[in-house]
Amino acid sequence: MAASMTTTTTITCATHVAQHNCLFPIDHRLNKSGLGYLFETRVKIQSPTLSYSHVTRRVMRVLATSVVTPRTVTRKLSSDDFPTVVNVDLGDRSYPIYIGDGLLNQPSLLQRHIHGHKVLVVTNTTVAPLYLDKVVHALTVGNPDVTVENVILPDGEKYKDMDTLMKVFDKAIESQLDRQCTFVALGGGVVGDMCGYAAASFLRGVNFIQIPTTVMAQVDSSVGGKTGINHILGKNLIGAFYQPKCVLIDTKTLNTLPDRELVSGLGEVIKYGLIRDAGFFEWQEKNMQALMSRDPDAFAYTIKRSCENKADVVSQDEKENGLRAIGNFGHTFGHAIETCCGYGHWLHGEAVAVGMVMAADMSYRLGWIDESVVERVNNLIKKANLPTAPPEMMTVEMFKSAMAVDKKIANGVLRLILLKGALGSCVFTGDYDRKALDDTLQAFCKS
Amino acid sequence: MAASMTTTTTITCATHVAQHNCLFPIDHRLNKSGLGYLFETRVKIQSPTLSYSHVTRRVMRVLATSVVTPRTVTRKLSSDDFPTVVNVDLGDRSYPIYIGDGLLNQPSLLQRHIHGHKVLVVTNTTVAPLYLDKVVHALTVGNPDVTVENVILPDGEKYKDMDTLMKVFDKAIESQLDRQCTFVALGGGVVGDMCGYAAASFLRGVNFIQIPTTVMAQVDSSVGGKTGINHILGKNLIGAFYQPKCVLIDTKTLNTLPDRELVSGLGEVIKYGLIRDAGFFEWQEKNMQALMSRDPDAFAYTIKRSCENKADVVSQDEKENGLRAIGNFGHTFGHAIETCCGYGHWLHGEAVAVGMVMAADMSYRLGWIDESVVERVNNLIKKANLPTAPPEMMTVEMFKSAMAVDKKIANGVLRLILLKGALGSCVFTGDYDRKALDDTLQAFCKS
Repeated sequence: MAASMTTTTTITCATHVAQHNCLFPIDHRLNKSGLGYLFETRVKIQSPTLSYSHVTRRVMRVLATSVVTPRTVTRKLSSDDFPTVVNVDLGDRSYPIYIGDGLLNQPSLLQRHIHGHKVLVVTNTTVAPLYLDKVVHALTVGNPDVTVENVILPDGEKYKDMDTLMKVFDKAIESQLDRQCTFVALGGGVVGDMCGYAAASFLRGVNFIQIPTTVMAQVDSSVGGKTGINHILGKNLIGAFYQPKCVLIDTKTLNTLPDRELVSGLGEVIKYGLIRDAGFFEWQEKNMQALMSRDPDAFAYTIKRSCENKADVVSQDEKENGLRAIGNFGHTFGHAIETCCGYGHWLHGEAVAVGMVMAADMSYRLGWIDESVVERVNNLIKKANLPTAPPEMMTVEMFKSAMAVDKKIANGVLRLILLKGALGSCVFTGDYDRKALDDTLQAFCKS
Repeated sequence: MAASMTTTTTITCATHVAQHNCLFPIDHRLNKSGLGYLFETRVKIQSPTLSYSHVTRRVMRVLATSVVTPRTVTRKLSSDDFPTVVNVDLGDRSYPIYIGDGLLNQPSLLQRHIHGHKVLVVTNTTVAPLYLDKVVHALTVGNPDVTVENVILPDGEKYKDMDTLMKVFDKAIESQLDRQCTFVALGGGVVGDMCGYAAASFLRGVNFIQIPTTVMAQVDSSVGGKTGINHILGKNLIGAFYQPKCVLIDTKTLNTLPDRELVSGLGEVIKYGLIRDAGFFEWQEKNMQALMSRDPDAFAYTIKRSCENKADVVSQDEKENGLRAIGNFGHTFGHAIETCCGYGHWLHGEAVAVGMVMAADMSYRLGWIDESVVERVNNLIKKANLPTAPPEMMTVEMFKSAMAVDKKIANGVLRLILLKGALGSCVFTGDYDRKALDDTLQAFCKS
């Protein structure tokens, strides 16, 4: 949470301070969200353990996010604490992203976004045993009018298809859900994408909420309303732009995430640094080890900063008419790997990591970036234990064939997101030398 | 067309009058559509065959539509004539409905709405042999940059399902269509709903155009952006609100429509009169025989007036938060019949006709309308050779079971569109005596 990121190491707070004299969330946008009243107060600062590096990191974060007010504050630390809130600004479709440790213990956060009396939780066989009961409790405690149905899908990208999607419709219809119901996506990117598309399509659109439980979903896929399923010939080719009513990120859910899944999500985190946030990239270069060792503060910051980047882009270009495409950096190459290897063999973030290395290579071949940037991309991805080369079975022709159905093709021209200029700058363009693309493909494929 | 409706019987026009002195479409909104320049001129009126009833009908139409200017005008009658245009006013998603005889011979009407270089025509096995070549010609003549693919679906409501929808996606992906492509729906309501939903979902949304070829589609389903497919448990339960770029209605296509299909469409026409347009209902009472005998003028007027009613409702309530629900008058009972009989055994308009009789019966039981209105509804539906009772196999329980998944249920309460007050007035409400519903079901079912 913002508060914990910037203050918990510097302020010793009474955990049971009365509400009226010390409720002051760091995130100044919280009040605009109408989440509650704010009180400012002076508190005694005790920082026996404050180290220089803590201070440095804290200041850097404050400068980088331009959100946190660097003043002496404190906050209530009980389970109904204020979360960090990042808003996705889309007019009457705006919504909050709540970020915090233990937010599933704050039922009011979810319940304020439930429309009607019936909820359908869409989750999978891995997540259901871990969090389904907790979510059902959060939805229903003190809220007896709400009944909750659930549908538990098989886990994995290979099930992100029409047959599995139909199970959601079947359950919704059998449960006689009406237009006033709410769908809740509980899980990673696959569950979020499928539940969102089902919500977009069921009765021509019902409300939905995202509760992402993987790094990938928390930093990227749950935000911005891209929903959909795969076609056997390509990823995410069938879907809708459909925004949730809120995104609730309980960072505690990452505790149960396998290392490989956790690391996969870091692929998208690295992406944000490369396409628009050099400061974040530099922070990652210094803190990748903290992330790899699951440091909660480092993760809280990473998720918030990623959501801010994503929300900012989505607010400017919801339906990807231009700017938003930069979020697909590395994805054209990456989707080709996922499609050709069979969905699920490579995790999305792993494929994107290789895609970013290839896109950086191509950008360098075009003369658009310095070699040093290529090296830094490679080094950071290696630090994250992510792959930097496609699987050996991938050929140039396989890449070309899979890339031929990419959504960024316009009138036959494949547009790519490529790095250009200083670190943190990119372009979305179809105006590049085809030879550079061919050379990159040949450099990364054995045949 | 509006012009022919209001002037051809009263004015003898020179058919080859020079463009600069007599182009004056009746529909004064045409100019706002940017379709061309308008000239007003005086012409000599010769009305040797003008009867009193012609005059009466003409004046009635003028008063009722509030669109036609009752002045002395004429118009060019060649094949590149101006069509009648009804606009669906939805801000940046507004679009024109072109209505006219032979509009498929006016390529510019279609071509101005084609985005990108690739078009996918979605049609069915019945319509393809009749109009596919003509549409492909209209899309490509003088337009060499455009290539047209097609997918021909099996014909019938029973194929309005996910498996058939996937054929559209398969073809689009195999043809490497990109976001700049345009889908064209060529056919009746089933094709329009499926093509529209495919367009809404392919690559998260591409442009599409409706070319309806049945009365049902021309007066109702092609306008307003409701798209979707059936689920085995209920009609149109999966879909999207997604507006076309234009609707092109070539009334000449009705020449090949079987009588049963033609009559089925009249069910929706009768609906408009009952829910909001008493003048139109009265006109139908006088002119149903002309419609049954396929009188072109009567059909041109019926289609325009229906589209005006639909466009007006959709413009006020695109996503059916309230008002738009009135367009479902008779549909709750009707959908139950379609679902229980197996899709396709009853045509949609046939089922809706029975549904309207049942809804009128229930309205009368509630004391909301006079008996005379019930009689007029029954009489007009009989005049149209449409059924007034459900199939004998339908039981009360079958109706209740099918109606339990109706999209108009809110928090467990089935809301219905019922007639209330004078002819042409209705309400959308869940606040009615359940006994009236039970009594109606029992009156229309043997068990």
